[in-house]
Amino acid sequence: MIKVGIIGAGRIGHVHGESISKFVKHAEVKTVADPFMNEKTEAWAKSLGIQKTTKDYHEILNDPEIEAVLICASTDQHSPLSIEALKAGKHVFCEKPIDHDVEKIKEVLAAVKESGKKYQVGFNRRFDHNFRAVREAVASGKVGRQQIIKITSRDPEPPSIDYVKVSGGIFLDMTIHDFDMVRYLSGAEVEEVYAEGSVTVDPEIGKAGDIDTAVITLKLDNGATAVIDNCRAACYGYDQRAEVFGSQGCVAITNDSDSNAVFSGKDGVVAEKPMFFFLERYMMAYAKEVDEFIEAIVNDTETPVTAKDGLEPVLIGLAAKKSVEEHRPVKIDEIRKVYGL
Amino acid sequence: MIKVGIIGAGRIGHVHGESISKFVKHAEVKTVADPFMNEKTEAWAKSLGIQKTTKDYHEILNDPEIEAVLICASTDQHSPLSIEALKAGKHVFCEKPIDHDVEKIKEVLAAVKESGKKYQVGFNRRFDHNFRAVREAVASGKVGRQQIIKITSRDPEPPSIDYVKVSGGIFLDMTIHDFDMVRYLSGAEVEEVYAEGSVTVDPEIGKAGDIDTAVITLKLDNGATAVIDNCRAACYGYDQRAEVFGSQGCVAITNDSDSNAVFSGKDGVVAEKPMFFFLERYMMAYAKEVDEFIEAIVNDTETPVTAKDGLEPVLIGLAAKKSVEEHRPVKIDEIRKVYGL
Amino acid sequence: MIKVGIIGAGRIGHVHGESISKFVKHAEVKTVADPFMNEKTEAWAKSLGIQKTTKDYHEILNDPEIEAVLICASTDQHSPLSIEALKAGKHVFCEKPIDHDVEKIKEVLAAVKESGKKYQVGFNRRFDHNFRAVREAVASGKVGRQQIIKITSRDPEPPSIDYVKVSGGIFLDMTIHDFDMVRYLSGAEVEEVYAEGSVTVDPEIGKAGDIDTAVITLKLDNGATAVIDNCRAACYGYDQRAEVFGSQGCVAITNDSDSNAVFSGKDGVVAEKPMFFFLERYMMAYAKEVDEFIEAIVNDTETPVTAKDGLEPVLIGLAAKKSVEEHRPVKIDEIRKVYGL
Amino acid sequence: MIKVGIIGAGRIGHVHGESISKFVKHAEVKTVADPFMNEKTEAWAKSLGIQKTTKDYHEILNDPEIEAVLICASTDQHSPLSIEALKAGKHVFCEKPIDHDVEKIKEVLAAVKESGKKYQVGFNRRFDHNFRAVREAVASGKVGRQQIIKITSRDPEPPSIDYVKVSGGIFLDMTIHDFDMVRYLSGAEVEEVYAEGSVTVDPEIGKAGDIDTAVITLKLDNGATAVIDNCRAACYGYDQRAEVFGSQGCVAITNDSDSNAVFSGKDGVVAEKPMFFFLERYMMAYAKEVDEFIEAIVNDTETPVTAKDGLEPVLIGLAAKKSVEEHRPVKIDEIRKVYGL
Repeated sequence: MIKVGIIGAGRIGHVHGESISKFVKHAEVKTVADPFMNEKTEAWAKSLGIQKTTKDYHEILNDPEIEAVLICASTDQHSPLSIEALKAGKHVFCEKPIDHDVEKIKEVLAAVKESGKKYQVGFNRRFDHNFRAVREAVASGKVGRQQIIKITSRDPEPPSIDYVKVSGGIFLDMTIHDFDMVRYLSGAEVEEVYAEGSVTVDPEIGKAGDIDTAVITLKLDNGATAVIDNCRAACYGYDQRAEVFGSQGCVAITNDSDSNAVFSGKDGVVAEKPMFFFLERYMMAYAKEVDEFIEAIVNDTETPVTAKDGLEPVLIGLAAKKSVEEHRPVKIDEIRKVYGL
Repeated sequence: MIKVGIIGAGRIGHVHGESISKFVKHAEVKTVADPFMNEKTEAWAKSLGIQKTTKDYHEILNDPEIEAVLICASTDQHSPLSIEALKAGKHVFCEKPIDHDVEKIKEVLAAVKESGKKYQVGFNRRFDHNFRAVREAVASGKVGRQQIIKITSRDPEPPSIDYVKVSGGIFLDMTIHDFDMVRYLSGAEVEEVYAEGSVTVDPEIGKAGDIDTAVITLKLDNGATAVIDNCRAACYGYDQRAEVFGSQGCVAITNDSDSNAVFSGKDGVVAEKPMFFFLERYMMAYAKEVDEFIEAIVNDTETPVTAKDGLEPVLIGLAAKKSVEEHRPVKIDEIRKVYGL
Repeated sequence: MIKVGIIGAGRIGHVHGESISKFVKHAEVKTVADPFMNEKTEAWAKSLGIQKTTKDYHEILNDPEIEAVLICASTDQHSPLSIEALKAGKHVFCEKPIDHDVEKIKEVLAAVKESGKKYQVGFNRRFDHNFRAVREAVASGKVGRQQIIKITSRDPEPPSIDYVKVSGGIFLDMTIHDFDMVRYLSGAEVEEVYAEGSVTVDPEIGKAGDIDTAVITLKLDNGATAVIDNCRAACYGYDQRAEVFGSQGCVAITNDSDSNAVFSGKDGVVAEKPMFFFLERYMMAYAKEVDEFIEAIVNDTETPVTAKDGLEPVLIGLAAKKSVEEHRPVKIDEIRKVYGL
Repeated sequence: MIKVGIIGAGRIGHVHGESISKFVKHAEVKTVADPFMNEKTEAWAKSLGIQKTTKDYHEILNDPEIEAVLICASTDQHSPLSIEALKAGKHVFCEKPIDHDVEKIKEVLAAVKESGKKYQVGFNRRFDHNFRAVREAVASGKVGRQQIIKITSRDPEPPSIDYVKVSGGIFLDMTIHDFDMVRYLSGAEVEEVYAEGSVTVDPEIGKAGDIDTAVITLKLDNGATAVIDNCRAACYGYDQRAEVFGSQGCVAITNDSDSNAVFSGKDGVVAEKPMFFFLERYMMAYAKEVDEFIEAIVNDTETPVTAKDGLEPVLIGLAAKKSVEEHRPVKIDEIRKVYGL
């Protein structure tokens, strides 16, 4: 039984706290730390059997019983907390992205290497039953030589403009999951990006310097081409689909709904909308990612999403940003060179 | 090129006239006869290149150029016209049912035998692409030993009460197609019927001595059990589904729509309703059944739906009627004995 | 927090133990009793944080801290344990069926009434997301006046012949869930049953005096007709579908699979098989049924599946059995009269 | 009744000949011309009731009875024959593309204008029931403001290398249909293209100077972004899908199959593959496009696919070609300027 500390008791901290207590066999949360710790959060922690709550995350880092730390703080804290936790001898599960700043990610990579501890980034979709089924079809060779990969990823509703302003932009905030998916599903690396961006949802997003709609084409080093389409709003819910097409066939996944009930009536044959958003859609994936993290600790194996897996999508995101700004295809190597990678 | 005469220029006569001119390679309609022949029908015939229209069907029977006759008159005329046409040396395609009266069907069977001419009954669904795909899966052995056969057959709207009164009852008018489907899909004979009937659509149908909703269980001589559910009204359109379940798997078909477009919006994920009714749904099957009839003439092979295939569903229908009246399972042999079959 | 004892640590006892610890908010399992308690079960209980294991279920009944008991013993123990637990002042959740013997069920009903305690029967499918969506469509009036209800329920593989011999027969063992579904989905009572049974899976099941394939027609007191088809084996997995057809439309559910991935290749467009069997398919329903049981205790409301709900399907099952034996439709009132109900 | 001449009796000439005789109400084919006219073609024409066959297309152009000409010759003959036919006072239906050379298309446009005759280009997919359903959803405002348009278009197998060499390249030969679809579905014009091309199917296609796989991103003048993915080979058949996503919802179409039969067996739940290729998939669309062409003549209305609709996709195709060559986004206006448009 691995004792775990959670730093950050916001929405995603709650998700992990609950899913660990329900679904993660070899872990228990001992302590939750949050600078804004309040009675409500304390009561929640208590209801899950979590022993301790604190405003000071050092109580987690200094607790020799705690072997693993989940970093669920705000994005700007991900890299410093990662490094501090690794230096304190903890295994680290860090929410995505590690950072928007590649230099800081490099520091985390160095710290991981130095510490010899496990490090996992929270790309939850890799643990979803549907995406995993696609990956398995590809990895088993069933699809043959990969030719075209398509990912549709549309949110049900845009975040607040305040959030947009600090989000790092759509590519680092939203598409980053899809960049990870391209790497995960293909098992290949991205070489070049061309991104088209537009503002079709809310002009305020444009005023905040971001885009809300994008189509991104990626050249992979296995010869395949990937294309992602994103939108910050889809009135029918969270649209999460993917397909990999290759010489032996095409594997595709579509959305999940709360039930598969279909109503045939005067107005047509009506199925349910997709599950509303990521908390509904990926609840079990959040549990599974931590479960596999804990198993990697228990069995001393590599984590399923490494620190490098945290770095690459950021590089792709920066290339996509540059592509929109300069209106041209951008090689990932251009970005790598900037950072001496 | 087989020259064809059509007796009866009502709705189904029009269907056959048009589909022969479009789709039936080796036939052309020479003459259309209808006691109520009028200008509109004459113009329609002309537009299809049909040479002759007449009020007197004897002009068809006496025309030595005409080799085959399609009987599209009202049900009470099916058997006498069949016999007359056969005696006139014509091959006969007769709309379903041959008759509601088994004695008259027996006379037709005798006339068929004596004449040595081709005879086909208009069970159009046997020629539908979906039902045929099920039959092929069963016949090829893909489904294995048959265990359960299910047929759903619901009309979009009930016929007029006047029609109900002369229809012969739901089992001989509507379910007769499904009885034929059970025989076609299974390749087996029905041994016993149990029918539940109710009036859930329109009390006037009940007052007319009929039912509008039925669930019929049938025991087949191959050990399988079939179940048909019928309703005279389905607000979403013509509901025509089937499945055959066996030891090696289950083959199922569902409805066809005008397009496969799906709209995801605020109110759900909406597909189109099934095609409205039999003319829309089975248009190509109407063409194909006559095409195969003509091919049977040209190649001198057995017609795909024989006179016996016209008799059996009537026997099953009469057994179903008796089952509802006497509220008990009824063996087909009980009905056969009554008619000395 | 309601403290719970589980009597019977077989497969279903394990399911409830695990799902309570994971998903049931206001309950914790304090004690598990099983006459064959062994080290493995003790270790399992420990891993879930269950305090106590014992061979003697009286340690549960005599424990004043334990408010609710889950009876997961063999079927013949359901009714005596129910009565003993109720008399000991416990709320009781009892696996289905309460008993095969109506007299014993009557005793349980009397004990429930006398005790004033909560009593729930384990008809888990009522808590499944798909079946519940159908129920909601019906209850909301969306389907309109009910006309035809269809339930397909096929197991992936038959139980052992030893089990078949003590199962009470297919109607009380397997179809009982479907009888409950007809009542649940319709909100109506069954008035009459006609059942066709056959042996198409394994002749040994026939030799054991049972059937393995059945089609059952039921007349409901709301004027609708229901039809259930059952088979003890389906090579493609657990087939669990339902539809309710009414004057305003038709709501239908189909199977769930591990993922919605579809592979298009040379051999067709291939989706995954249905989930293998009830443990996979209804895992969340097992959790939800106990959760709602506990909530009924906490809020002092009626349980969602009452003792009467445990009785009715047994009466329908006995009527179905009689229907096969006497080859005729059987009214439920016939069975009621036998037992003075 | 419009009398029609067909110039070119290859595969597509046959398609039109047959579909006119079956489905096009107000037209009949009087003459078929082909320089390689042979006995087989003559017999085929006769079987359709076509009066005349000839090696010399002038017999069509000089026949005052013939009002409309279908140009089904090889691509290099499309523009000269169009001009000659227009000058001869005929309405012209011309197979796509009008030409690969924009100058020649300009001459055709001028000839159309001068002649005042009807001119239609054979973009058959606009007449397909599925694509039309998408267009109607968009045009009716159901989708709201358009944001993302996606088209998947994959052939079952590549053409011969000899064909590839004279095809004008994938963009003018294959993608041209998809460029037309983007214009048709959106009702908007394309402003800019970025195309990624690769050779993943057959290196010989690369050696012939072409690509066989492409992902093309298009900016539309309504603010939406479109993305097309193409491949010259898909082992599961002709893959023809589309979706339009907008502020009010998303409308999507998928492939058609010969039947909707689904087989559930040990290996999964298997549906049929898509229809094999364009002749199977778009048979009815070929009929409908000519029917609407004839109706435009009869009613003196604009043809549903004008000469301009024939020009625009060629410009987009040339921009796409340039985009691959120069590895950058290319504005359509760049191409327009080259040709003084």
